[in-house]
Amino acid sequence: MVIGHECAGIIEEVGSEVKNLVPGDRVALEPGISCWRCDLCKEGRYNLCPEMKFFATPPVHGSLAHQVVHPAYLCFKLPDNVSLEEGAMCEPLSVGVHACRRANIGPETNVLVMGAGPIGLVTMLAARAFGAPRIVIVDVNDNRLSVAKDLGADEVVKVSTNMQDIPEEVERICKAMGAGVDVSFDCAGLNKTMSTALTATSAGGKVCLVGMGHTEMTVPLTPAATREVDVIGIFRYKNTWPLCLEFLRSGKIDVKPLITHRFGFSQKEVEEAFETSARGGNAIKIFRETFLSYLVWHLVNNG
Amino acid sequence: MVIGHECAGIIEEVGSEVKNLVPGDRVALEPGISCWRCDLCKEGRYNLCPEMKFFATPPVHGSLAHQVVHPAYLCFKLPDNVSLEEGAMCEPLSVGVHACRRANIGPETNVLVMGAGPIGLVTMLAARAFGAPRIVIVDVNDNRLSVAKDLGADEVVKVSTNMQDIPEEVERICKAMGAGVDVSFDCAGLNKTMSTALTATSAGGKVCLVGMGHTEMTVPLTPAATREVDVIGIFRYKNTWPLCLEFLRSGKIDVKPLITHRFGFSQKEVEEAFETSARGGNAIKIFRETFLSYLVWHLVNNG
Amino acid sequence: MVIGHECAGIIEEVGSEVKNLVPGDRVALEPGISCWRCDLCKEGRYNLCPEMKFFATPPVHGSLAHQVVHPAYLCFKLPDNVSLEEGAMCEPLSVGVHACRRANIGPETNVLVMGAGPIGLVTMLAARAFGAPRIVIVDVNDNRLSVAKDLGADEVVKVSTNMQDIPEEVERICKAMGAGVDVSFDCAGLNKTMSTALTATSAGGKVCLVGMGHTEMTVPLTPAATREVDVIGIFRYKNTWPLCLEFLRSGKIDVKPLITHRFGFSQKEVEEAFETSARGGNAIKIFRETFLSYLVWHLVNNG
Amino acid sequence: MVIGHECAGIIEEVGSEVKNLVPGDRVALEPGISCWRCDLCKEGRYNLCPEMKFFATPPVHGSLAHQVVHPAYLCFKLPDNVSLEEGAMCEPLSVGVHACRRANIGPETNVLVMGAGPIGLVTMLAARAFGAPRIVIVDVNDNRLSVAKDLGADEVVKVSTNMQDIPEEVERICKAMGAGVDVSFDCAGLNKTMSTALTATSAGGKVCLVGMGHTEMTVPLTPAATREVDVIGIFRYKNTWPLCLEFLRSGKIDVKPLITHRFGFSQKEVEEAFETSARGGNAIKIFRETFLSYLVWHLVNNG
Repeated sequence: MVIGHECAGIIEEVGSEVKNLVPGDRVALEPGISCWRCDLCKEGRYNLCPEMKFFATPPVHGSLAHQVVHPAYLCFKLPDNVSLEEGAMCEPLSVGVHACRRANIGPETNVLVMGAGPIGLVTMLAARAFGAPRIVIVDVNDNRLSVAKDLGADEVVKVSTNMQDIPEEVERICKAMGAGVDVSFDCAGLNKTMSTALTATSAGGKVCLVGMGHTEMTVPLTPAATREVDVIGIFRYKNTWPLCLEFLRSGKIDVKPLITHRFGFSQKEVEEAFETSARGGNAIKIFRETFLSYLVWHLVNNG
Repeated sequence: MVIGHECAGIIEEVGSEVKNLVPGDRVALEPGISCWRCDLCKEGRYNLCPEMKFFATPPVHGSLAHQVVHPAYLCFKLPDNVSLEEGAMCEPLSVGVHACRRANIGPETNVLVMGAGPIGLVTMLAARAFGAPRIVIVDVNDNRLSVAKDLGADEVVKVSTNMQDIPEEVERICKAMGAGVDVSFDCAGLNKTMSTALTATSAGGKVCLVGMGHTEMTVPLTPAATREVDVIGIFRYKNTWPLCLEFLRSGKIDVKPLITHRFGFSQKEVEEAFETSARGGNAIKIFRETFLSYLVWHLVNNG
Repeated sequence: MVIGHECAGIIEEVGSEVKNLVPGDRVALEPGISCWRCDLCKEGRYNLCPEMKFFATPPVHGSLAHQVVHPAYLCFKLPDNVSLEEGAMCEPLSVGVHACRRANIGPETNVLVMGAGPIGLVTMLAARAFGAPRIVIVDVNDNRLSVAKDLGADEVVKVSTNMQDIPEEVERICKAMGAGVDVSFDCAGLNKTMSTALTATSAGGKVCLVGMGHTEMTVPLTPAATREVDVIGIFRYKNTWPLCLEFLRSGKIDVKPLITHRFGFSQKEVEEAFETSARGGNAIKIFRETFLSYLVWHLVNNG
Repeated sequence: MVIGHECAGIIEEVGSEVKNLVPGDRVALEPGISCWRCDLCKEGRYNLCPEMKFFATPPVHGSLAHQVVHPAYLCFKLPDNVSLEEGAMCEPLSVGVHACRRANIGPETNVLVMGAGPIGLVTMLAARAFGAPRIVIVDVNDNRLSVAKDLGADEVVKVSTNMQDIPEEVERICKAMGAGVDVSFDCAGLNKTMSTALTATSAGGKVCLVGMGHTEMTVPLTPAATREVDVIGIFRYKNTWPLCLEFLRSGKIDVKPLITHRFGFSQKEVEEAFETSARGGNAIKIFRETFLSYLVWHLVNNG
């Protein structure tokens, strides 16, 4: 089983009906192929297609390979100023973009991000690109918060893992925001982060559940519901590649600081990459997931 | 402290600037007076106004009185074929109507209602009036389910209070629906009902949390979120009286079967009313809450 | 070139990958095949696909044939109580359904329909099925208005073709409505009908342009815009067949009164059908367009 | 009759129930007072209130005065880095902001602006602040286009006043956009600008009619409607002041270049101001409308 679902590469060959791509084009790949026959596909929610074929989701092989065959309409040409490794970053960035779209982020939305791991960071970057005027990010780890601050968070709030601290922490979060929290993204998905998000969000706001730390959750759902704080779920993404590439092209989002390690494609280097990823250290989690994409492989594109 | 917030009555006197009402008019009253100054009011979400003055919510007295002074714009004239006691039923019905609006019920929405108590019943009636083609209602009580069936549920499903039964019960619910569940209304608000609703609802659907049984909830929120099943909260209602009265006028909703007991306004009758309500029996819960409204009191309306 | 795009039939043969249909199934056909590759398809607006292949739109042949090959996902099984000729009526009905969806018709929407021709009638029937509480329909022809009244219009208003009469006619329309006009459907698409619709619609409402009588229009667009009356366009339909079939199954819409003539498939009968259609008489226009569909032809379905 | 409706000033006195303002506060004023009793107010569309009392709209006096009494909830405190004259600019800017909200502008919306007069310019600035990635602006006047380019338009297109040139001009507009036009703002409201906008906008897009040059319009409405290009109207604005002030505070919008002339409040200076405005010259129209606001007057605020 081949793994990997974040990738960009160079077109090697195209099918006879492919019109928009030619060999040599640099492209980023959207990894999922939906059926376009079911109700969800027809309504434009193809990310929820039950027949989805997705890289590295059994029995479908992933993209960590020298060559991949992929439909042309899921290959997006990179702007000249976007590198292949930035192109591969469209995949994690798409999670943040899709979350921002579902939560309807705009220039009037004050945003709270719970969790400054890789998904928290891309969500923060996406929220900023959608115009969020003020973003507060929360984590248990000083190092992560420092990265988040460097990447543009307006304020960071350090919290504990103790449920009892929630009231005091919500107070600090609201003070850091200096205004109501319109949308919270829970990028950890734990009882504590979700409880904090539900409590901190203002009446009429939204909590978008992005992380998947806990399956069953024990959270104060009813008090949130009675303030009409809605809980919005997301699954992957849809139609996000063109927008991600535009964000990268225009500089509204810079993903380069998220890329901390690079590895070649030899046996030894791949092993080293996995080890670095497993060790953690000052490589934050996203690099584990994406480093494989930085390799330039060739792509046979079949229409 | 006077209680009561479901009421209709006859206008006795109007302020000098009141144009739409005259003494003798029969009206239903929307019980909450919002500030019209805060952001939520200005955006049309006045039900969330933090300065709301609401009948029977301290320090505001309720409507169980011979005379009430109330703003004219919150008094809605009853159509000729709508009685005062039906008019008073606009209040509980408004909860269902507001829930249906927030969940965007229409002729393509298959609806699951968890709980066949009074709020479950008005939500079911409202969903039907919004065009829901198929409604399945679930309860632990045969008697309630029988009432629900009489009031128009397509199918009823009896369940236990045991969490372990959820998988099998979801299976029966889906079979009874004979199609995907697009929107679930949890009108109980318990761990079990909410877990069932989250599990039974199809990808891309919504669960609307109406009941408030538990404050903190332990529920499988993450699996629902990853199918983009959103959790929609509601608080009371807004702008619902005209629509409720239209539903009553046109016969799209008939609330008369929900009114099982009537009491006068003497000391003795009121006591008897409270006792009947407390006893339960074949009076379902709604009657406890609303019987006070059937009394015709006089209303001084002050513009 | 074969004409025809409204059709239903019986499955004769299915491709090897078709799972939901078997020979002998009675189905209605959605006539357009979109590309599922362009942005509009991917966003769920496949009716706007620039690569659409549509029955009877050159170079694609139409459905007036004994056999048609069509994708399985565009063939919808008829409920037992829906006949083939009713199934064929899903096509014109879909225009009304799509218009009602785009205009967001529901139980709070008072509807004005300009034009009581076939498209006006199906739009009226669809608006009723979406819950419109009050529908006023307008035409120049008494006979058409009488049909509209029989089919369920609350009020009919006869108008002239003279632009000068608009103010007086708008007054009569508003009086017939007895309330604000929330949505107007212009099912004629003429300067006069559109001017009337724009003028009659209340602040914050919508005018949905369905008919295509005039290409360039001279209309009071600015006064409508300054009351935030939006003009909504429609093109064909998308995802409408399941809802149409549900409306027919449940009896929320009865299209049988719209079917006034039936013809066989012999040379002579087809000629007679065209002649009847061309003559008009008490066949209203819709029958010209749809009579070809009533023939039961066989369908080879290829997945 | 006193004119003027764009104003900012310093609080002189407040009513006893006013909590958020104190004498000395610098504020911008939203000029319209709606009834908060009608359906439109209650639904959050208070700008359409038929009982609106608006500065300088008879019989209500305008704000060109040394003192004005105004409700506290319509007075918005200026951030420290926003001057009084910038604060007064919230009024014209609000038109652009409201248009962008109604047209749902975001980071995926390529925007065409017809007309580079003051309203075209503020709409362009607002669209940029809402994240529009690409903006093309069109005018007949080189000078205006040059100002628009300086203020941030990606491309400018010079056009004629001749209807026959539309096809060729649309071609140049689309080429300048280099992509589909998602939303067009017609900030002139003439037959030609609207026809151009309707033709240039892509399938599924929107044309927002902002300008009011012509009352009755002769435009190709039907071809636009059959591509589901909707025409969105706007009337003034609602809930825009906080967002405008945030845009000014953060520097996302800089209105200072729009302020070209300043006048005192003596008889002579006011006369001179009107003359400058009437002459035009290199003062573009917006200054005619707003110069009166730059005067710092005192405001008695009455709750």
